[in-house]
Amino acid sequence: MTDQPLVIFTPSGKRGHVAPGTKVLDAARSLGADLDSVCGRRGVCSKCQIAPSFGTHAKHGITVAEDALTPINAVEERYDRVRGLKPGRRLGCQAEILADVVIDVPPESQVHKQVVRKRAEARDITVDPAVRLHYVEVAEPTMDAPSGDCERLLDALKAEMGIETLGMDFALLPGLQKVLRKGGWKVTAAIHLDGAPEVIALWPGYHEGVFGLAVDIGSTTIAGHLTDLASGEVVASSGIMNPQIRYGEDVMSRVSHAMMNAGGAAELTAAVREGLNGLVGALVEEAGIDKGQILDAAFVMNPVMHHLFLGLDPYELGQAPFALATGSAQRLPARTLGLDIAPGTRAYVLPLIAGHVGADAAAVALSEQPHKSDDLVLVVDVGTNAEILLGDRTGVLACSSPTGPAFEGAQISSGQRAAPGAIERVEIDPVTKEPRFRVIGSELWSDDPGFADAIAGTGLTGICGSGIIEVVAEMRMAGIVDAKGLIGSAEETGSARCVAEGRTQSYVLWEGDETTPRITVTNNDVRAIQMAKAALYAGARLLMDKRGVDRVDRVVLAGAFGAHISPKHAMVLGMIPDVPLAKVSSAGNAAGTGARIALLNLGARAEIERVVGEIDKIETAIEPRFQEHFVAATAMPNAADPFDGLRAVVPLPEPSFGKSGESGRRRRRS
Amino acid sequence: MTDQPLVIFTPSGKRGHVAPGTKVLDAARSLGADLDSVCGRRGVCSKCQIAPSFGTHAKHGITVAEDALTPINAVEERYDRVRGLKPGRRLGCQAEILADVVIDVPPESQVHKQVVRKRAEARDITVDPAVRLHYVEVAEPTMDAPSGDCERLLDALKAEMGIETLGMDFALLPGLQKVLRKGGWKVTAAIHLDGAPEVIALWPGYHEGVFGLAVDIGSTTIAGHLTDLASGEVVASSGIMNPQIRYGEDVMSRVSHAMMNAGGAAELTAAVREGLNGLVGALVEEAGIDKGQILDAAFVMNPVMHHLFLGLDPYELGQAPFALATGSAQRLPARTLGLDIAPGTRAYVLPLIAGHVGADAAAVALSEQPHKSDDLVLVVDVGTNAEILLGDRTGVLACSSPTGPAFEGAQISSGQRAAPGAIERVEIDPVTKEPRFRVIGSELWSDDPGFADAIAGTGLTGICGSGIIEVVAEMRMAGIVDAKGLIGSAEETGSARCVAEGRTQSYVLWEGDETTPRITVTNNDVRAIQMAKAALYAGARLLMDKRGVDRVDRVVLAGAFGAHISPKHAMVLGMIPDVPLAKVSSAGNAAGTGARIALLNLGARAEIERVVGEIDKIETAIEPRFQEHFVAATAMPNAADPFDGLRAVVPLPEPSFGKSGESGRRRRRS
Repeated sequence: MTDQPLVIFTPSGKRGHVAPGTKVLDAARSLGADLDSVCGRRGVCSKCQIAPSFGTHAKHGITVAEDALTPINAVEERYDRVRGLKPGRRLGCQAEILADVVIDVPPESQVHKQVVRKRAEARDITVDPAVRLHYVEVAEPTMDAPSGDCERLLDALKAEMGIETLGMDFALLPGLQKVLRKGGWKVTAAIHLDGAPEVIALWPGYHEGVFGLAVDIGSTTIAGHLTDLASGEVVASSGIMNPQIRYGEDVMSRVSHAMMNAGGAAELTAAVREGLNGLVGALVEEAGIDKGQILDAAFVMNPVMHHLFLGLDPYELGQAPFALATGSAQRLPARTLGLDIAPGTRAYVLPLIAGHVGADAAAVALSEQPHKSDDLVLVVDVGTNAEILLGDRTGVLACSSPTGPAFEGAQISSGQRAAPGAIERVEIDPVTKEPRFRVIGSELWSDDPGFADAIAGTGLTGICGSGIIEVVAEMRMAGIVDAKGLIGSAEETGSARCVAEGRTQSYVLWEGDETTPRITVTNNDVRAIQMAKAALYAGARLLMDKRGVDRVDRVVLAGAFGAHISPKHAMVLGMIPDVPLAKVSSAGNAAGTGARIALLNLGARAEIERVVGEIDKIETAIEPRFQEHFVAATAMPNAADPFDGLRAVVPLPEPSFGKSGESGRRRRRS
Repeated sequence: MTDQPLVIFTPSGKRGHVAPGTKVLDAARSLGADLDSVCGRRGVCSKCQIAPSFGTHAKHGITVAEDALTPINAVEERYDRVRGLKPGRRLGCQAEILADVVIDVPPESQVHKQVVRKRAEARDITVDPAVRLHYVEVAEPTMDAPSGDCERLLDALKAEMGIETLGMDFALLPGLQKVLRKGGWKVTAAIHLDGAPEVIALWPGYHEGVFGLAVDIGSTTIAGHLTDLASGEVVASSGIMNPQIRYGEDVMSRVSHAMMNAGGAAELTAAVREGLNGLVGALVEEAGIDKGQILDAAFVMNPVMHHLFLGLDPYELGQAPFALATGSAQRLPARTLGLDIAPGTRAYVLPLIAGHVGADAAAVALSEQPHKSDDLVLVVDVGTNAEILLGDRTGVLACSSPTGPAFEGAQISSGQRAAPGAIERVEIDPVTKEPRFRVIGSELWSDDPGFADAIAGTGLTGICGSGIIEVVAEMRMAGIVDAKGLIGSAEETGSARCVAEGRTQSYVLWEGDETTPRITVTNNDVRAIQMAKAALYAGARLLMDKRGVDRVDRVVLAGAFGAHISPKHAMVLGMIPDVPLAKVSSAGNAAGTGARIALLNLGARAEIERVVGEIDKIETAIEPRFQEHFVAATAMPNAADPFDGLRAVVPLPEPSFGKSGESGRRRRRS
């Protein structure tokens, strides 16, 4: 046995011999065990709390004596007296190792904490943000050594942190001298480590608590998550309507506004930035923190939103070849983006993938990690444009497909946004052809007793995106719609709910009464869903062609819509390629999660920039095969019910209504 | 003899053998000869023009054949046709070397041109600015390769310039796409190389002409020099009153304004920035250039001006220990300093030396180079504070001395700024005690015939700084003032020009008439000059003490005042240590020259930052010896006349007037 005591850190298992008298923190650093420290060994921050584990450790073959560490010293006593130290805990920067010892590092003392995600297949997030706090004592100025306050602060931080190139954000200089004097030359500095290391915030004395924003700027909604950069937990979430909506519902009408009006792009930029500032205010109020504690922000959005947010005219995105001004990840002060947060707050904008495939898709890739998947995964983020990723660890392809707004309930006769009162679930009895449904805000089905009372509060107002998919799929399965997408007449289907409206038939989902409207599915509605699902499917098929496969191993549905969609109905409709039902999962708001990962983990930024660089970008607009797939996919597939997840295709009676279909016409939104 | 032709470049003398067919430009690059090129060998910029020198070169022992280079090619013919090529000139990027050749690189084709300074002892300035132009052809976007325009531009520049880390100023992104398309994917980029390399300006097609500003922000005057960054020549100079003057004549009253008024510092910051924007407008108009061509700026100023210009509250500079917020050199976008020039214009602020010794003193050091001097040089920049440098190549000391405004004609009974009508030269006959003088704007002495007519235009309004120094020195030499600084009475001096005013005597320099005022030198005037010169001398002596010497080899007088001061009178007064008169030189506006050097030469920035770091900073306020020197120096020295430059001290009759002196009292301006 050596004279040097053996130290074993748990849970990491890092172990080694150290000189007697070595401080626990130094032992952890030299052995590579993860132990935090902010205050530079001053016994102030208590981030380095550890728990020695006395007694016999059969597993390690050692017995730890009660005096394996030096006794509690004056610094620890003071800390315990002032702030309280849990029983059994020691400060790693004070306790010294005298004999063999097993030392447990509790989760809160680990630098790289894990944020556990709820979904089994999702990786946990390691909290390793771009912003670090460091408490430091600064030399006071004297007339003998007339260096600047800034230089003395940086010298102190450089010496303690070992960052020779550390600089200071110029925006902090005006407040610097007061903070140093208010803190009695003891201050806590926030250091930004993404790019050239810089001090970006400063507080007098010891400070804890820095936060970051993960923001998804959608065409319709801007969603923000205020996140604790130490724990990785979301402390407040809020969403607002994108104020640009007043310039057009979809991105292309906003591009038109920018093109047709002098100063139009600047107006749109000002609108989204103003909205963001309002959102930040709401989040800060909800969390009860000071705005000055928000020091970092990660942004994701589609290419048009990206350009408008950054203050770039989206003109070129409105026409082929859809040239981006820039697609690279952006690192810049948040103030440069017109955000009024703290003087030094930083912004990170994830890279765009291509002219039609945005940073939101990059964030989906960061969250769902197709590039690390062992099996071939198709990730679909459905919105006005569907963004589609296909790949595994050998490579990833991406494209965007112009699905249009039908999946969001727009351009559907009774369509509406997902909101209370909207029909979201539909079943149609294949024998009686009678429907039943549920509306958002009520637990009851429409044929349950008490349904009328149940919807008194919400009303019954229309059909949302997931409802329209279900009703069309159910109509197909019930033989009400044929393979070409035509609704049969009452005669043909044997259902009085099929009624002629003009030259086509409609299916009456709800007759309406004094308080509720009549809700029908018209043949135009079916046609709109047909077009949308064909575009989505064609995009996925195109990527499969490029990859040289005709099946995928699993499908991930991302986005708010993806979270509510019924995989069974999506497959019946032919929105997505057939896979066993158990292999379809919903990733929820994967773009938002990706933004949060980029916010919390510095390494994830480099990762997604590398991955985006390596992705094969496919432009659907110039691919003849996309057109072919689209035409083929407008048909409603031979109705299959993959209910049991075993690809048990159950052929249904196959009706065919009307004479000819107009289903082959290609529609592309410009 | 080798098969490889010998190439000799003149005037550099670089020589070597190259493979036959090597382009002249490539040969220059490989042999280290200085040959410019902006357009990446496209025959567009003609910066690489050279002149082959045919015939026998006895000096080099070679004969150059007429066909030593390939014949003029199509690119050169086109250039000659379109823009014209001087006879005998070739384009170095086109002509290939076939046989032994001597190639002359004309001055305009050298990258590192020399700006020759007029003073013999001043080094020339090598033009090697932080901003370079590069003409480049950018790949057009396609749907197959959907990278951003910015990324494609940077890729092209990286490939041609070999700068892997090249970035783009975010402020350029909004205009990027239009410029690329307007130029047909051919653009000229300006690259800023001081710090992380960035594109800071962009023009469609081929562009020439970038400019920089060298600015000296004085408490009273802001002087700007618009400089061609290619040739190093000043194309326009202009000066304005510092608009902060309305908040106080001297810097300390401005610090008081900032301290006493909420928002006072911000007011002062806005005033100086507004003034600068006006100055830029005047310079641009004078030079007839576009503001967008100004891409760099170098700034020098005293510490209070520095803080106010940067937007930092100068509060701490108003009290011991005079702590700077920051003293380091600043590199930042000019827009951050509120300057409305071009989006990407950069600013470089020279480092401060200490709380009282500014970037103007650093610029003086850059211009006068005490750190490279073989002999021990004292550099004095006289203003409201005198900034004093003493040193040689073994080391430099610096201090600031509170001379007050007397040298600038303020606080002198008949004092005024140096302007037409002000007395600037004075002689007093040592026998008759009669004076004669000259005023600014007139060539005649006051005893010359026609003087009255000569000053009809200018008037005769007072005495400026150099005049007051001469008159007091002459009074001392004429025995009108004694060693303690007392003016003798008419009886004591034998001159009716000495008249009692209150308890002391005054000397009547000009009796006045209907159009001119009576101009006298009061004993208080003499006292003010005594105090000022004592402060200056004490500062210089303190540095000499620190250096352990009691003499210096030469003295350089810098600043506008230094340019007009009479070295003889300065030495008679005891303002500066005795040296042979030939060893006193005037450096003119050395601070402005230093700013221009920092603007034109990237290496000079690193040099001055290193030198400032190494300078021994002496704070006069805490040095007991400064007090002692000050007290001792209030006396008027035993009047010496070093007229002949040989330290020939000529003792004069030594009068002593009055009973006691109050000359020992220490005065320090706070």
